[in-house]
Amino acid sequence: MSTETYIDIVDEKARKRALEVFQERFRKVLDAIISGRNPTLIIPKRTLNNTIYDVKRKLLLLGPEKMKRSFFDLHESKKFMQTLLMARIIYEALERDEYPTIRDLYYRGKHTIIYRDPRGRTHEENTWDEQRESDSVIRDIEVLTGMLREEMLILSKEKGKVVGNMRIRSGNDIIDLSKMGHGAYAIESTPDFIEFVDVDAEYVLLVEKDAVFQQLHRIGFWRRHKTILVTSAGQPDRATRRFIRRLNEELGLPVYILTDADPYGWYIYSVFKIGSITLSYESERLATPRARFIGVSMTDIFGYRRKKPYLTEQERKNYIIKAKDADIKRAVELKNYIWFQTEKWKTEIDIFLEKKAKLEIEALTSKGLRFLADKYLPEKIQTGDWIE
Amino acid sequence: MSTETYIDIVDEKARKRALEVFQERFRKVLDAIISGRNPTLIIPKRTLNNTIYDVKRKLLLLGPEKMKRSFFDLHESKKFMQTLLMARIIYEALERDEYPTIRDLYYRGKHTIIYRDPRGRTHEENTWDEQRESDSVIRDIEVLTGMLREEMLILSKEKGKVVGNMRIRSGNDIIDLSKMGHGAYAIESTPDFIEFVDVDAEYVLLVEKDAVFQQLHRIGFWRRHKTILVTSAGQPDRATRRFIRRLNEELGLPVYILTDADPYGWYIYSVFKIGSITLSYESERLATPRARFIGVSMTDIFGYRRKKPYLTEQERKNYIIKAKDADIKRAVELKNYIWFQTEKWKTEIDIFLEKKAKLEIEALTSKGLRFLADKYLPEKIQTGDWIE
Repeated sequence: MSTETYIDIVDEKARKRALEVFQERFRKVLDAIISGRNPTLIIPKRTLNNTIYDVKRKLLLLGPEKMKRSFFDLHESKKFMQTLLMARIIYEALERDEYPTIRDLYYRGKHTIIYRDPRGRTHEENTWDEQRESDSVIRDIEVLTGMLREEMLILSKEKGKVVGNMRIRSGNDIIDLSKMGHGAYAIESTPDFIEFVDVDAEYVLLVEKDAVFQQLHRIGFWRRHKTILVTSAGQPDRATRRFIRRLNEELGLPVYILTDADPYGWYIYSVFKIGSITLSYESERLATPRARFIGVSMTDIFGYRRKKPYLTEQERKNYIIKAKDADIKRAVELKNYIWFQTEKWKTEIDIFLEKKAKLEIEALTSKGLRFLADKYLPEKIQTGDWIE
Repeated sequence: MSTETYIDIVDEKARKRALEVFQERFRKVLDAIISGRNPTLIIPKRTLNNTIYDVKRKLLLLGPEKMKRSFFDLHESKKFMQTLLMARIIYEALERDEYPTIRDLYYRGKHTIIYRDPRGRTHEENTWDEQRESDSVIRDIEVLTGMLREEMLILSKEKGKVVGNMRIRSGNDIIDLSKMGHGAYAIESTPDFIEFVDVDAEYVLLVEKDAVFQQLHRIGFWRRHKTILVTSAGQPDRATRRFIRRLNEELGLPVYILTDADPYGWYIYSVFKIGSITLSYESERLATPRARFIGVSMTDIFGYRRKKPYLTEQERKNYIIKAKDADIKRAVELKNYIWFQTEKWKTEIDIFLEKKAKLEIEALTSKGLRFLADKYLPEKIQTGDWIE
């Protein structure tokens, strides 16, 4: 028991770098305090107004607006203090070889400050009350330092899994993603630290649903079709998005996204491709603008012009789920986004609004898993039947 | 692309066995039909009344009651037909080398039967309308065949992850669970097919929360303390429960369960240990009656008699969450279960009901990850400060 000699070289290096960035970014604040000036932080604004869709790069990005947070400003001093408090906690965690989570950081900073004003009255003020507040401060520190929280060794719940003909280096280990048996490799919280050792694949297939991922894995889909097979197990977390982006950008692999045929599935695709509106500062690193929506599309279900549907009349009758009001509302919203205003997406959304019909991927696997694996997916990829 | 020569030996064997069990179990039905008798299935009753807590084995089990499902019984014929329909679908999937999910099976069987009665009137009847119905039929087939659905190669969403000094065989691969880098091994849907190759560990630590699992993994906890580290990522699924049971039963490793300090955490522990009431027929294979609740316990927070609390007064003030009415209600329910009527559990629940206080594991990691990893957990294990 207990020999602490194991050193994770990758994490050590990341820690050193993060500490340096913190020292550099906060030196000015320190200098200001020492020389008696008003300490001030200048932080890019994370507001909806300062969120811009970059048409050329096809990404949601932060605009140029910045805000000032000064200690001697009544409206800003609490936020200023929160930011310094959080920066200190993260810095200490880095120094102490810790791996905090955002929930951790909330607890670490949560306390009541009791102080006496010049008239001798006692006041109480909480550093923060809810995690929403401390999370927002962490985001400010991300944009301020230009580092994602993962680069500060902050961990979080992670759902993404991967298998395929690929070897990666993670920590001190080399992992062969083609030797996972019936299981899979659970992607780490900090996918920027992964090194791609070698890869023999033609594309990446991201499957929304874990159970369908398992089916395709078990049937050997990735082996036969030279695929890196990934699941986000629902709404994707940051690590899965960053991992997908790196596969696309650094290895040049096309990325196809397979979701249920409904506005929720489209939204998952949108988060992978464009980023999320509330976290636009992350898109630059997490979004995959060239990601392709492979299906299940409305034209797969109903056909369109010369395209024949993959489902028969009878199958549609058995498998289609009636859209709810919330689905319709969502679809109308998505239609307004610039990146859904292409010919193909308009067709998709219009068919949906006309038919008020949803379909799950499992309705396709119920036609036989081999239908999904050996006909539907390869045929659609081969004929370019996807949506950009 | 596309050489279909890869054969999964483990799955091949399982398929063959499952097909044989189906043939044997349904032969009588076939014989009855062929010889003109009323075909009948005799199935153990999966009702609350027929669910028994076996005090000696410390397990929730199905009682001795059985039910008859006959074709020529107006009240039972639909259920009888559903059972045979589902059995046929599963059998066909086995023959065709498929890996259906329960959602799949619902879709595969979902259709409308149109028939004309002797008076010439047309009737329509759906095989089933909701997955609840088809899932119930699958459970009947499980108790009827004595096989878990996983043994019929039926897959499902799976959240469990593991790392540790252990090698397993899954499918055709041998996987070293100590060489997963920063990631982890995502457990397969069918953990009965896993072979334990070798292991060098002293106990199993099951962590409810994925983020805490990742923290302990990243800090090298399992390396220093010879642990097989597992997370259920919330409410455990069947595969994680079966995997934990096998580690305990076949390798003789003690199992410690770490959850939040609240009735939800206790329930997670209870599902691992005793089984769930609605699925008592599974307990025999999925439950781990000797599992130990390591914490976070109410006595850890508040102390008890000569035991000192792990939290200071100030930390309690900052970290404790006030229990909601639903938590209180849940605690009162749990108190009525026989397996919570031990001295230690009574103390736990009574402290909770008195203080109306909940605590998350993250409140402990906020005291420093090393506090959790190098003091709290080892100390509690060493001094036997767990609840049976």
